[in-house]
Amino acid sequence: MRPSATTPIAAPEAPAVPIRIGQILGSISDKLAATETLLREQLRSDVPFVDDAGHYLTDSGGKRMRPALLLLAARLLGHDGEEEVTYATVVEFIHTATLIHDDIIDHSNLRRGRETVNQLWGNSLTVLLGDWIYTKAMRLALAHDNVEVIRQLTTATLRMTEGEMLCLQRLGAIDLTVDEYFSIIDRKTAHLFSAACSIPCLIQPARPEAAIPLRAYGRALGNCFQLVDDLLDFTASEGELGKPVLSDLKEGKLTLPLILLLPRVPRVERDKIEAVLTDRAFERVGANEILELVSREGTLEEVEEMARRYADEACEALAFFPPSETREALEIAPQFVLDRRS
Amino acid sequence: MRPSATTPIAAPEAPAVPIRIGQILGSISDKLAATETLLREQLRSDVPFVDDAGHYLTDSGGKRMRPALLLLAARLLGHDGEEEVTYATVVEFIHTATLIHDDIIDHSNLRRGRETVNQLWGNSLTVLLGDWIYTKAMRLALAHDNVEVIRQLTTATLRMTEGEMLCLQRLGAIDLTVDEYFSIIDRKTAHLFSAACSIPCLIQPARPEAAIPLRAYGRALGNCFQLVDDLLDFTASEGELGKPVLSDLKEGKLTLPLILLLPRVPRVERDKIEAVLTDRAFERVGANEILELVSREGTLEEVEEMARRYADEACEALAFFPPSETREALEIAPQFVLDRRS
Repeated sequence: MRPSATTPIAAPEAPAVPIRIGQILGSISDKLAATETLLREQLRSDVPFVDDAGHYLTDSGGKRMRPALLLLAARLLGHDGEEEVTYATVVEFIHTATLIHDDIIDHSNLRRGRETVNQLWGNSLTVLLGDWIYTKAMRLALAHDNVEVIRQLTTATLRMTEGEMLCLQRLGAIDLTVDEYFSIIDRKTAHLFSAACSIPCLIQPARPEAAIPLRAYGRALGNCFQLVDDLLDFTASEGELGKPVLSDLKEGKLTLPLILLLPRVPRVERDKIEAVLTDRAFERVGANEILELVSREGTLEEVEEMARRYADEACEALAFFPPSETREALEIAPQFVLDRRS
Repeated sequence: MRPSATTPIAAPEAPAVPIRIGQILGSISDKLAATETLLREQLRSDVPFVDDAGHYLTDSGGKRMRPALLLLAARLLGHDGEEEVTYATVVEFIHTATLIHDDIIDHSNLRRGRETVNQLWGNSLTVLLGDWIYTKAMRLALAHDNVEVIRQLTTATLRMTEGEMLCLQRLGAIDLTVDEYFSIIDRKTAHLFSAACSIPCLIQPARPEAAIPLRAYGRALGNCFQLVDDLLDFTASEGELGKPVLSDLKEGKLTLPLILLLPRVPRVERDKIEAVLTDRAFERVGANEILELVSREGTLEEVEEMARRYADEACEALAFFPPSETREALEIAPQFVLDRRS
């Protein structure tokens, strides 16, 4: 999946003005609203904690990127029913359950600028809430008796869990390779994006031939998204991110800007990065020193260029479909993801 | 579901010799072996940790009670194929995932006399392993394209998760009521027993009319099993249990023998129980003091009597089916569960 450095993909002209989210989501705003309603409905429970934590989660927002992609892909294929709203809710549930368990694992106390569920309710209840939401997702996905949908969702969920395991087992490792990094983000992020984009092909009348380009689109966009997300940890402010800058490194996670940089810098600078990975804190080394290092070596720009190539790859996959307003919305989505960077 | 104290169920004569497991499992030994093979196969993964921890889990045994019940129910309905082996593996996976997450929550370091997964690999990887096994269970359950099976399994899993949440939210509470206790064990244990026993009704040719008695059988047996399990925490030795005696109380969990006892004893003795619940340790009060208390008040015998009534209720549900060797095996299973007590 990783585009090689020599792949001759012509970068399209970057638009003069940033993409507005309305340009992408305008045509599916009713479906997104229906998804929001279903999300809230399905998080109701006679167990008070589920009800409280569920509402806390839906109220804390989130970009609803995976539901939006699923709904756009469904619209691209001409669907206009309730089925895609169900599946949009399901992918958001799976994503949410993953975040909930990841926040326990990462000992995170902030997400989207608010306290995490584990911070508020403790790890034990939070483990169970994640289980409940995963199971609810599978339960809801059955609503239209489509076994293949669940098959794809469980496969994506297995890949995500494996990605997080691989990440965890290499936590604090200074020798994480570029290949390992891509294997992790592909599993952790790209697989669910890919499933979200291709599941509408299974809605009747099924469009199996559309699954390949939509899967390719989702996977490339997912990788693009994760690269940008990892870049933001270096470039965005705490206010923008809702969590501290360089929190990946502080959690022991090496991301691509530093993986690319490490073989190029002298031992003394490598040791600085290792010190943060080991201490899980900016004690012996300041965050600014790390930021100056990546700025000097230019690896943020290199990663941005790689993200741009994934964005191009995503757009190219859409050439399979005839031009339409929805195709255009899907085409500008990668640019919107890239715009977050700047 | 709880049989009232006045329900006039005639207790059958207890057999003079204890039931041997072979009397129950003889007819399904080939299917149990096939289940064991499938369990191992399905826990293989290219992520080394899953492979290692998965083999550790299958090697550490377990009674395989839920698979055995599912296979017996399938045999009772005349099935003899691969489908029941798949579902038997699935219910064991769901049970295993639950135990894995429960051990994190309970901070358990021993299960079945061996170190727990969380003790060996840490909580973070263990959260993910539980997620992986839950998802694998759902993935495997799809093998025969039977949506209704997944529906019942996800419902049982939701109930189990809710049961554990309710339990956790009342941890350390001295005022846990009998009703709350039964609501917790019904969700935590009886629902999956019930699903295991009734899922074979969905195998083609489907036998929907058999679902009600099989569900009733499973639910009553599940409650019987949990009562006996809670009794064993008072009566069995550490060697037999593979974990310390009175570990429920030490974890802050009040079970029925103590719930029944509390309103009958003087304040000073109530305070002793509360001290253990609060300290999560036998510091101010010895385990022996608690054991003497239940022995004096006779609540273990009362709970045993309740377990016996559930066992009778389970047997009665089987009257729906014509006599057969398999029906007999299912009829003696509750007695086998009760025999663990003595």
